[in-house]
Amino acid sequence: MKLATIRTNLGNRAVRVDDGAAVETGHADVGELLRAPYWKDVAFAADGARHTLDALDFATLVPNPEKVICVGLNYKDHIAETGRDTPTAPTLFTKFARTLIGAHDPIELPRDDESVSVDWEAELGIVIGTEVRRASSEQAAAAIAGYTVINDVSVRDFQNRTTQFLPGKAWENTSPVGPTLTVSDGGDPAHFPISCTVDGVTMQSSNTSQLLFDPVTLVEFISTFITLAPGDLIATGTPGGVGVARSPQVFLRRGQMVVTRIDGIGECRNTCA
Amino acid sequence: MKLATIRTNLGNRAVRVDDGAAVETGHADVGELLRAPYWKDVAFAADGARHTLDALDFATLVPNPEKVICVGLNYKDHIAETGRDTPTAPTLFTKFARTLIGAHDPIELPRDDESVSVDWEAELGIVIGTEVRRASSEQAAAAIAGYTVINDVSVRDFQNRTTQFLPGKAWENTSPVGPTLTVSDGGDPAHFPISCTVDGVTMQSSNTSQLLFDPVTLVEFISTFITLAPGDLIATGTPGGVGVARSPQVFLRRGQMVVTRIDGIGECRNTCA
Repeated sequence: MKLATIRTNLGNRAVRVDDGAAVETGHADVGELLRAPYWKDVAFAADGARHTLDALDFATLVPNPEKVICVGLNYKDHIAETGRDTPTAPTLFTKFARTLIGAHDPIELPRDDESVSVDWEAELGIVIGTEVRRASSEQAAAAIAGYTVINDVSVRDFQNRTTQFLPGKAWENTSPVGPTLTVSDGGDPAHFPISCTVDGVTMQSSNTSQLLFDPVTLVEFISTFITLAPGDLIATGTPGGVGVARSPQVFLRRGQMVVTRIDGIGECRNTCA
Repeated sequence: MKLATIRTNLGNRAVRVDDGAAVETGHADVGELLRAPYWKDVAFAADGARHTLDALDFATLVPNPEKVICVGLNYKDHIAETGRDTPTAPTLFTKFARTLIGAHDPIELPRDDESVSVDWEAELGIVIGTEVRRASSEQAAAAIAGYTVINDVSVRDFQNRTTQFLPGKAWENTSPVGPTLTVSDGGDPAHFPISCTVDGVTMQSSNTSQLLFDPVTLVEFISTFITLAPGDLIATGTPGGVGVARSPQVFLRRGQMVVTRIDGIGECRNTCA
């Protein structure tokens, strides 16, 4: 089952995306749906207004998540190419709700006098479906509503002016999430090809099997210090091939098209504006 | 004018704290009040239900802020004692709404098998009153609703396991904010004694005049990359004297009383539980 938040003339609506149409669930967005009791049964049984698939206007998947937590340095191939030691704990930082955009929305680049070093990071996104604190691995697996695609767009000079990444990771209207939530069947998502292209040129190409800390481990660790709540997003880190690590470095320019894709999960397509 | 969020039998209520009583403004909390048009006039004119001052039960000042942004390494005396270069940009990281507690609530220490290295950080807190992006210094000053006290309680081993501070800074129910918002008259708050005591022993004693990046500069810088919104909190950094920098190191233990105080702004008094 796939779920999405779409924009309609009446405002945002949560929908179940079937093969032939998108069907409204009766909730304003996927976040509100996930906070409803028995949300999976409710979404499965939904029979509201229908929308043709080719006309869907995707809002960001969860417009007002309580938390957006990102993981750095989490792909084994990427860690190996940086030559660093294998981390013993996940490197965690945050974005804000205002940082997120829809799967096909333009990425709002900073003004040229603010920064010209904006980079892509294709990532598997976890969406939380159940409140959980100090989760066991079983509880962590059960707390995962499902998976999506996140482009953890990063303004590198703002990220690296101090030790803390926030100013480069939280730029307003830069980071697509979606288009859909692929609801978890409890299985392991760690075997999907993940890629990023810029104007058709492949920049990142890896597999989620390369994740050092897998989704269940991340939920366990994060829930040690904070309650995870329905609608919370976790961006699980990016593989090698980012622009800042290239020689010479490559950054996004206005008018370029960035496609971040995870086979079986979805694809974000965003122009740089 | 001082404002607070108090707990009542009917739920949280925003109040104006006068010399003789606390007067309800008609809003659920200070965050809701700050989102109301002409909130300052509304608060000044409020004439709702009254509460005697000695019976006030303070909730955290803004229970559901959109953002909680913290500044590291921002006191000149503290930077000097660390021997580091003077930063050219503020070091920024975040807490979550669930991290915050009331001014007199117990600090929920981690379990002993999780961490025993919990530290204090007395800080001047900025509360935003007007939505602002890419603020000029005049706009930044006007966007500040006022000031409060924040104890940026830090779980040092979780903070320092990787380069990013989040896991040590965002522990649930650890960080008092309040008791009141001292509404800004547009003046410069950079001349207040700031201190922290643990069981009556002075651990930190400085003055907000030592701030490297002052409140207006912080609002200007942060609003470069993200819109600040009414109710947003900014913890402006702590002076020297934290437990982790002492020799030998000193950390909080169950039963201890931590008092963080800024003269003219307020005082948080919290036991460690």
